[in-house]
Amino acid sequence: MRLVVINPNSTASMTEKIVASARAVAGAGVEVEGRTATGAPPSIQGHHDEVMCAPHLLREVREAEAGNADAIVVACFDDPAIGACREIATGPVLGICEAGVKAASMIASSFSVVTTLPRSVPIIEEMVRRYGLAHQCRRVRAAAIPVLALEEPGSNARNLVRDEIRRAVAEDGCEAVVLGCAGMSDLVVWLTEETGVPVIDGVTAATKFAEALVGAGLRTSKIGAYAPPTPH
Amino acid sequence: MRLVVINPNSTASMTEKIVASARAVAGAGVEVEGRTATGAPPSIQGHHDEVMCAPHLLREVREAEAGNADAIVVACFDDPAIGACREIATGPVLGICEAGVKAASMIASSFSVVTTLPRSVPIIEEMVRRYGLAHQCRRVRAAAIPVLALEEPGSNARNLVRDEIRRAVAEDGCEAVVLGCAGMSDLVVWLTEETGVPVIDGVTAATKFAEALVGAGLRTSKIGAYAPPTPH
Amino acid sequence: MRLVVINPNSTASMTEKIVASARAVAGAGVEVEGRTATGAPPSIQGHHDEVMCAPHLLREVREAEAGNADAIVVACFDDPAIGACREIATGPVLGICEAGVKAASMIASSFSVVTTLPRSVPIIEEMVRRYGLAHQCRRVRAAAIPVLALEEPGSNARNLVRDEIRRAVAEDGCEAVVLGCAGMSDLVVWLTEETGVPVIDGVTAATKFAEALVGAGLRTSKIGAYAPPTPH
Amino acid sequence: MRLVVINPNSTASMTEKIVASARAVAGAGVEVEGRTATGAPPSIQGHHDEVMCAPHLLREVREAEAGNADAIVVACFDDPAIGACREIATGPVLGICEAGVKAASMIASSFSVVTTLPRSVPIIEEMVRRYGLAHQCRRVRAAAIPVLALEEPGSNARNLVRDEIRRAVAEDGCEAVVLGCAGMSDLVVWLTEETGVPVIDGVTAATKFAEALVGAGLRTSKIGAYAPPTPH
Amino acid sequence: MRLVVINPNSTASMTEKIVASARAVAGAGVEVEGRTATGAPPSIQGHHDEVMCAPHLLREVREAEAGNADAIVVACFDDPAIGACREIATGPVLGICEAGVKAASMIASSFSVVTTLPRSVPIIEEMVRRYGLAHQCRRVRAAAIPVLALEEPGSNARNLVRDEIRRAVAEDGCEAVVLGCAGMSDLVVWLTEETGVPVIDGVTAATKFAEALVGAGLRTSKIGAYAPPTPH
Amino acid sequence: MRLVVINPNSTASMTEKIVASARAVAGAGVEVEGRTATGAPPSIQGHHDEVMCAPHLLREVREAEAGNADAIVVACFDDPAIGACREIATGPVLGICEAGVKAASMIASSFSVVTTLPRSVPIIEEMVRRYGLAHQCRRVRAAAIPVLALEEPGSNARNLVRDEIRRAVAEDGCEAVVLGCAGMSDLVVWLTEETGVPVIDGVTAATKFAEALVGAGLRTSKIGAYAPPTPH
Repeated sequence: MRLVVINPNSTASMTEKIVASARAVAGAGVEVEGRTATGAPPSIQGHHDEVMCAPHLLREVREAEAGNADAIVVACFDDPAIGACREIATGPVLGICEAGVKAASMIASSFSVVTTLPRSVPIIEEMVRRYGLAHQCRRVRAAAIPVLALEEPGSNARNLVRDEIRRAVAEDGCEAVVLGCAGMSDLVVWLTEETGVPVIDGVTAATKFAEALVGAGLRTSKIGAYAPPTPH
Repeated sequence: MRLVVINPNSTASMTEKIVASARAVAGAGVEVEGRTATGAPPSIQGHHDEVMCAPHLLREVREAEAGNADAIVVACFDDPAIGACREIATGPVLGICEAGVKAASMIASSFSVVTTLPRSVPIIEEMVRRYGLAHQCRRVRAAAIPVLALEEPGSNARNLVRDEIRRAVAEDGCEAVVLGCAGMSDLVVWLTEETGVPVIDGVTAATKFAEALVGAGLRTSKIGAYAPPTPH
Repeated sequence: MRLVVINPNSTASMTEKIVASARAVAGAGVEVEGRTATGAPPSIQGHHDEVMCAPHLLREVREAEAGNADAIVVACFDDPAIGACREIATGPVLGICEAGVKAASMIASSFSVVTTLPRSVPIIEEMVRRYGLAHQCRRVRAAAIPVLALEEPGSNARNLVRDEIRRAVAEDGCEAVVLGCAGMSDLVVWLTEETGVPVIDGVTAATKFAEALVGAGLRTSKIGAYAPPTPH
Repeated sequence: MRLVVINPNSTASMTEKIVASARAVAGAGVEVEGRTATGAPPSIQGHHDEVMCAPHLLREVREAEAGNADAIVVACFDDPAIGACREIATGPVLGICEAGVKAASMIASSFSVVTTLPRSVPIIEEMVRRYGLAHQCRRVRAAAIPVLALEEPGSNARNLVRDEIRRAVAEDGCEAVVLGCAGMSDLVVWLTEETGVPVIDGVTAATKFAEALVGAGLRTSKIGAYAPPTPH
Repeated sequence: MRLVVINPNSTASMTEKIVASARAVAGAGVEVEGRTATGAPPSIQGHHDEVMCAPHLLREVREAEAGNADAIVVACFDDPAIGACREIATGPVLGICEAGVKAASMIASSFSVVTTLPRSVPIIEEMVRRYGLAHQCRRVRAAAIPVLALEEPGSNARNLVRDEIRRAVAEDGCEAVVLGCAGMSDLVVWLTEETGVPVIDGVTAATKFAEALVGAGLRTSKIGAYAPPTPH
Repeated sequence: MRLVVINPNSTASMTEKIVASARAVAGAGVEVEGRTATGAPPSIQGHHDEVMCAPHLLREVREAEAGNADAIVVACFDDPAIGACREIATGPVLGICEAGVKAASMIASSFSVVTTLPRSVPIIEEMVRRYGLAHQCRRVRAAAIPVLALEEPGSNARNLVRDEIRRAVAEDGCEAVVLGCAGMSDLVVWLTEETGVPVIDGVTAATKFAEALVGAGLRTSKIGAYAPPTPH
């Protein structure tokens, strides 16, 4: 099968990292293709960036479809434009927030989310409510780092994320922690070891869930909310 | 005060209709400016169209800000990109779904929504849940007409809307009906007379609520979710 | 239009303050009439006071209707007897809690409420749930002052309110604060300046929303919960 | 123990019926005293009537307290002024809606409510939500009879109630039915026999739950929402 | 009437304590029979123990039925296998968590729960949500004591429970506290005196509510979820 | 990896069918082992059967662990004893209801469930609420067939299931249908073809999700609700 992982921002180094994460867990026979939403903002920090990336993301979805993608992962924790992607795609489409929190709900009775900037906290809280998991989410926390700090070699970002995870476990009583940014994907093994608690990376979770849905023979339903876009 | 009403699709006749509705109710001293999201799809029928209109909408919001808008109304019932608009704007920003259902909640203990196409039903249901009014919303119904049929002189669209409102009252036990499309704005007086039930037009409601917020000295909060976009 | 603002307690100095707040924001052509629920308790601090004020409040509503009121504001944050007022009134009726929190929901993704006494906290929490905004309300807080302390010149009440607002912003992560008592109405400008955060006064909000509903041609629905009282 | 059952309307024949229901189930050593809210409306059909009965109800609560009541039942399905009664009372206070639906939730996984007039439906729906049992309540139905029709010998009211219960079972898939009016209290045995489904009378349920709370040594908590009224 | 109180674990000393609590409050003419789920784990600390006790519990329910039980109380705060017990029983069946939190909801606007071990906290939180009382439950707390420490004479367990109740009142703003373990049943009077706040024991509450339901003529509905087990 | 699929009832033919479904979708390198809860009831039709199967199910989980299972699927739509299984297991444990409805939520905005007997409807409704997906679940329906009718060659069961799916699509406006019984697992391809709507089999979904969680490096969290059982 052919899995296309789309980075909806325009930072190619982040795409590489994301694709590496996806490939590291992809099953036998799964070809992972990475795509970057060239033309989009370099990172998605708030609603405005989400809007500005979305048409570029949809262009990549269309190209993925043209290339016979079996499933698509949208690798930004704001789950931008997922409904629109599902209208265009025929196979399953997964955002990494949805995948991450649903994975957490399967291995723990409660979880917290650790994201980058405080401004993303209310956005993620709203998504968690929409996915129906507010009752299992203890708290959405920010490590107070810009997204692109995660791309800078030698930055202190990873330590700040680790410290916030430790605070989540100590203060929230959560049983697992979901990483609230695609750019943290490469840290998941190190963070798990450092903290001793299940740490969930949405990129990994979405990759495996997308494989799972395809393997179960499921595709996006086309008889309602995700019917193909109306021709104009 | 200066109120900018933006039609996030590119159909100028719809903008004219919407602006006429807004002007018909605008208070003394309120200047209503209409803007069309030129370059956007001609109508918004589903998630894809919403995404494709959003950057054009944001451009209009930016121009409205440059023109010293005191408040902004986004005149599409899908409330596209409201969070992003609020990041850019300094004054209040209102979508017509939010305004319509919150107005309904103030004059009736329950309401139904009548929209155009069935594909919009789950989208509106999700918004109503997000606005916290699912317990007052009896049902979201579709009159099964394309948005642009409302622009065609001589079409049967208005009768179909009226008939669906009558069914809502008879079958849902609702006490008011919210019109689920900006393109129905010019019908609100006729529909109220025909059905004898309070019929709420989101354009009108949003215009007046925007005026109200400005009049109360309120502007969009800038210390959290709606802080200005991060510079890149 | 004719807007009647009713103080459901019997303290005339509070009525004057409330009416001044309403007049300060009322639109051109809006005549604001204040009424005091003479015979009611001097302040409403709990369920008992709410019950004891309600028949006096309804009497004032009836007189307002006789005087051709276009809309009615009930200026107590417990929103006493709103359903009953809506049965009697023909125009819209707004309580200041409903107006305040719905205004907050339009300009901020989250808010806290600062009220007077701790005993009002569970009452307000229940109202916020009923209005469907629990997910946006971070916390309901009490400044621990009796209602009438707000009427005493030279009291420290305003400083206690300001301090509690600052704690709300610092501890709750809220983006706006709603004042939880009609008697705080005259402080809203000062509190906004002192705290630098959007502070919402329910009296002001209700005044403008009532104007808005009338301006939108909306009246209380009479086909269900708010039908006129049954004759006995 | 001394249980005071208060009819918050002024119809003495209804008080007699209610007291008879309470006495029929009262435990050994339980003295049931009936009180009528003289001066209140003759029936409670909507919010207005509820407000107008409430001060008379509170007067009866005060007198019951003066007479050393151990517990109080408020015998109207709108549960009027329960918070205020709890502020005045020292023992437990139960409304018959709360008691009825909580009893239903203990013997069935779902229930419907059958009340008198359609206008009471949204009022009861809101109470069921407030009591946290919306997920177990299939539907609130009205038999379309005025409250006092239940007092008229020879009226068809009881048959209409029975027919509505049968429809509830057939159409709603509910496992029990709660009678939504104190005036149906004398019908509960007959209705149970006629329909073969558990039928729950709130008067009976509240009487027994009030006894139960007293027997368990519980009294109304006085450290928060139900603290004694503030002296003025 | 004949009330059977079943201890679903195998610790006979706990059964004795529970039965003593039930008898201390049972009404005139109520015969309380205690039964121990011999063969079950000695205490129920988590999901596994709950499963292992359940068939033994059902055996005791069957024997109680054979002995003409009018009602059954399951005396473990995890409310194990209540649905299955209700399928077997003809009379009402009450778990002590359901009874405890519903009793609390009748005498206080909010409550906290104090249980034994932290691992029970998420289990109880889920039950409180299922019973629809999450909005009234401030917090579920653990005193960090094993269940059987409550059986050891001279242990410090009772002091730890008292201290946790005091913290609940001070930190949670709750108006009542529910004891989250059947083994705390004998402490309820002492804890109430020590803390001055309403403390609710589920065993006592369930005993009285079971009596109440029987006294109201109610039995478990057999037309849906609690129909008798399918014969195999 | 080693995936153990446990049939918690004792009907071996059903185990075979379930294992065949799992093997049909299992990824390369996944060894699927089937286990039957010998000693359990032959089918699970209600709460009682669920309890009686659970200790046998746990025994199989323990043996699976002893055999180095990497993940476990519990193949009954009532998701019996999942919490207890998670306490025992080290890898992920998935019930087929949770897997089925979460899969549905990823490919459709709404779904209905079609199960066997009406008595399972309230049980499934409660699970859907617990999993947080009530807002996406249009309706839980029963085809009115006993579980074991699905095992009888030549029975009409499959046609009844197909007809109920068609009614779900026509009447509920759902976009996908989840099969509410493990015994329907072999019908999923046929039902999808017959109805033209996405039909989701929980066995398949759980198999792939279990694989996915293992592939993502996730195991059941052991620091809270799913810590190993307390030694007694």
